[in-house]
Amino acid sequence: MLSKKSIIGIDDLSVEEVNKVLIHADSFLEVSKRDVKKVPTLRGKTIANLFFEPSTRTKTSFEIAAKRLSADIINFSAQGSSLEKGESIFDTLKTILAMNVDLVVIRHSDCGAAKLISENINIPVINAGDGKHQHPTQALLDLYTIKKKFDSFKGLKVAIVGDILNSRVARSDIELFKKMGIDVTIVSCPMLLPDSMDYINVEIKDSIDDVIDKVDVLYMLRMQFERQDKKFYPSIREYNKFLSLDINRLKKMKLSSVVMHPGPVNRGIEISEEVMSISGKLAEKLEIENQVTYGVAIRMALLYLILG
Amino acid sequence: MLSKKSIIGIDDLSVEEVNKVLIHADSFLEVSKRDVKKVPTLRGKTIANLFFEPSTRTKTSFEIAAKRLSADIINFSAQGSSLEKGESIFDTLKTILAMNVDLVVIRHSDCGAAKLISENINIPVINAGDGKHQHPTQALLDLYTIKKKFDSFKGLKVAIVGDILNSRVARSDIELFKKMGIDVTIVSCPMLLPDSMDYINVEIKDSIDDVIDKVDVLYMLRMQFERQDKKFYPSIREYNKFLSLDINRLKKMKLSSVVMHPGPVNRGIEISEEVMSISGKLAEKLEIENQVTYGVAIRMALLYLILG
Amino acid sequence: MLSKKSIIGIDDLSVEEVNKVLIHADSFLEVSKRDVKKVPTLRGKTIANLFFEPSTRTKTSFEIAAKRLSADIINFSAQGSSLEKGESIFDTLKTILAMNVDLVVIRHSDCGAAKLISENINIPVINAGDGKHQHPTQALLDLYTIKKKFDSFKGLKVAIVGDILNSRVARSDIELFKKMGIDVTIVSCPMLLPDSMDYINVEIKDSIDDVIDKVDVLYMLRMQFERQDKKFYPSIREYNKFLSLDINRLKKMKLSSVVMHPGPVNRGIEISEEVMSISGKLAEKLEIENQVTYGVAIRMALLYLILG
Repeated sequence: MLSKKSIIGIDDLSVEEVNKVLIHADSFLEVSKRDVKKVPTLRGKTIANLFFEPSTRTKTSFEIAAKRLSADIINFSAQGSSLEKGESIFDTLKTILAMNVDLVVIRHSDCGAAKLISENINIPVINAGDGKHQHPTQALLDLYTIKKKFDSFKGLKVAIVGDILNSRVARSDIELFKKMGIDVTIVSCPMLLPDSMDYINVEIKDSIDDVIDKVDVLYMLRMQFERQDKKFYPSIREYNKFLSLDINRLKKMKLSSVVMHPGPVNRGIEISEEVMSISGKLAEKLEIENQVTYGVAIRMALLYLILG
Repeated sequence: MLSKKSIIGIDDLSVEEVNKVLIHADSFLEVSKRDVKKVPTLRGKTIANLFFEPSTRTKTSFEIAAKRLSADIINFSAQGSSLEKGESIFDTLKTILAMNVDLVVIRHSDCGAAKLISENINIPVINAGDGKHQHPTQALLDLYTIKKKFDSFKGLKVAIVGDILNSRVARSDIELFKKMGIDVTIVSCPMLLPDSMDYINVEIKDSIDDVIDKVDVLYMLRMQFERQDKKFYPSIREYNKFLSLDINRLKKMKLSSVVMHPGPVNRGIEISEEVMSISGKLAEKLEIENQVTYGVAIRMALLYLILG
Repeated sequence: MLSKKSIIGIDDLSVEEVNKVLIHADSFLEVSKRDVKKVPTLRGKTIANLFFEPSTRTKTSFEIAAKRLSADIINFSAQGSSLEKGESIFDTLKTILAMNVDLVVIRHSDCGAAKLISENINIPVINAGDGKHQHPTQALLDLYTIKKKFDSFKGLKVAIVGDILNSRVARSDIELFKKMGIDVTIVSCPMLLPDSMDYINVEIKDSIDDVIDKVDVLYMLRMQFERQDKKFYPSIREYNKFLSLDINRLKKMKLSSVVMHPGPVNRGIEISEEVMSISGKLAEKLEIENQVTYGVAIRMALLYLILG
């Protein structure tokens, strides 16, 4: 029901297809809120969950999505597998495919891993994150979070703040948000931006204060310390000065605006402890847990549209 | 169907509720002995099994219990999760909750971890062991083992032997057994007892020989070497002299009496190799495998009473 | 429906029983090619998958086989289990059994582990590999691969090439192939052969060139580096000279002949990179992925015949 069977990056989906995914997510969101959170849609399908990087939310999200669709899911991570015997990732994959698996979800630390794999196997692949490159299901769930809040995308202002260089989420989000007509601004600093900005083509600011009272969505990126082979920022104090969300900045935001983050949050870096533990009216600005909830629905929608 | 939705410690259950759990365990014990060991009771429920300490029996017991009730279970352990990225346990948990999980089973090395979590989330939590504090489902299965053997609790004499200080099983067992009217004696030594004994308020002996011919149940605790940051006992020889069960002591036990242990047994320490490999009539005294069998039934009963 | 309930080695199966397994594998192969790859045959059965050595293909194969038969499967590996607390494998097993498990699949690095276990428990055990000793389900899937290709076994010539000494696959294959009337030759060198060859009693050649144009099946063994405590071969160049399959040798094979390997292949050692990436007509000689596909069917057949 989608033109391309694999979802490697945002350009695998047309605007119409993105809208179709969001509409189906609504039905599956409802399933997850039922007393019996299960539909027989994908009974007898086998899905392989291949994670070659640590993950809680994405791996579990796909696992829950598959189970709620009644599919069988085979979890597979590098630890304890034949990779320890020196088997190449590709041979591992061919082995799993030969067991008549219907779809592969893959996360890998190499950019292009999911694409390479999808070109060499004849079943659908969903990219669950490849190095610093793409994370399309995260972008779809981020978009869905925005839709649930604002209903329409036209004229919405989103600022994406922080470590653009090392973030696959940033890459996928910028691409998808722009495709859907959202006005995207980046807030970052030269050390956290790629050398060439051609692919991005959005306005760049160097302090969160330049956008805080104008945006509808403040999208805080995670500092990807685990993907940084050198130190990208002089100090946390410097980072906090220009790129962090604290309580004072939160209070300057527009009434209807929201804060998003792909998680897990580095408390005290991207977002202050105080903001993370806030309660009352201002707490409603934080969409972080909704993003997780919507993630299951988005993944159910994708699995259904690809395999159903 | 229980007054408190979470089971953190023994005081979350009234005497009536404990009896209700035991009665339901009988039905579920029967399910596990059927040819088709499965009932549709919790179909479409999602249970998260969060283990932050190594575990075979408790983790697998909950997993089997959930599957036999047709629930979906998400296994989650510290290894390979976002905890490696520095995510706090609490943020991990909020993530999992946001996926519309119905119940969380949690084991953690910190005393009070389960309680803290249950106070901050709005779904039921079952404590599967928190540090040296509590392990209520173990106590319930221990009580159920006693009930299957003796039918009534009144007047029964139970001696709990060994490492009280580091044992969450001891704490939960003592509390539950006393609540149900069982006469509890402790056999231990000062180094293996807590500084304050107020919470315990039971008779204390320092040699197993003081109780061996009087008890109905000899409950041997595991030496919790992995939770001991210093050496608690001068030598294994000393331990064996006062606190171990060997074949001579086994023979002195009353005809109808039984031996229990939460497992895994340190052979040669709490219980001798000879006793562990015994066969014939005396072997029937060992309830250790029955405890495991009853554990699945108790956990099915709890999951059913909380979610059913 | 089999005379012995456990499958530890090839001699647990008569010729008639082997044929029965192969016939049932046909039905289950068909199930795995359906749109809905699931039958309710083993609903409510609990299977324990105990792997004490790293494994991708065998562990996943049993997991998929169990799920397609609707059984509940409990995955269990040494990591994260109570083995870390010093629990013996046998105590671990008794614990799992006490939870009313119906069948245990076990892989362990000790020869005889599966047999020892099967003699001490009263439920069926399937040996998924014990040290250098036996791997009967691999031999059955290898035989099934041959049957799918050649239909009959009589007069077929199979050469088994490489590390006989450290290979449980070799041992099980030789035994099973001979039992079914296949003509088996070994190609190896003294360093890769056991001291006593009595149990084998087949012709031995020292270069693949002696057999390459005569065999129907060239069965390339994996160099079991992880099981070799000393260096068994002077150099990879020497190995390649006598025991490797390269493109020139592949071209010399008979038209109808095939190449098999239990996987994972050490590329450049047993089989050259060029052969592994070959396309076109010659690629059809490689049965390696078919072996994996047939492995799921064979394991479904065994689980069904033992538990159904």
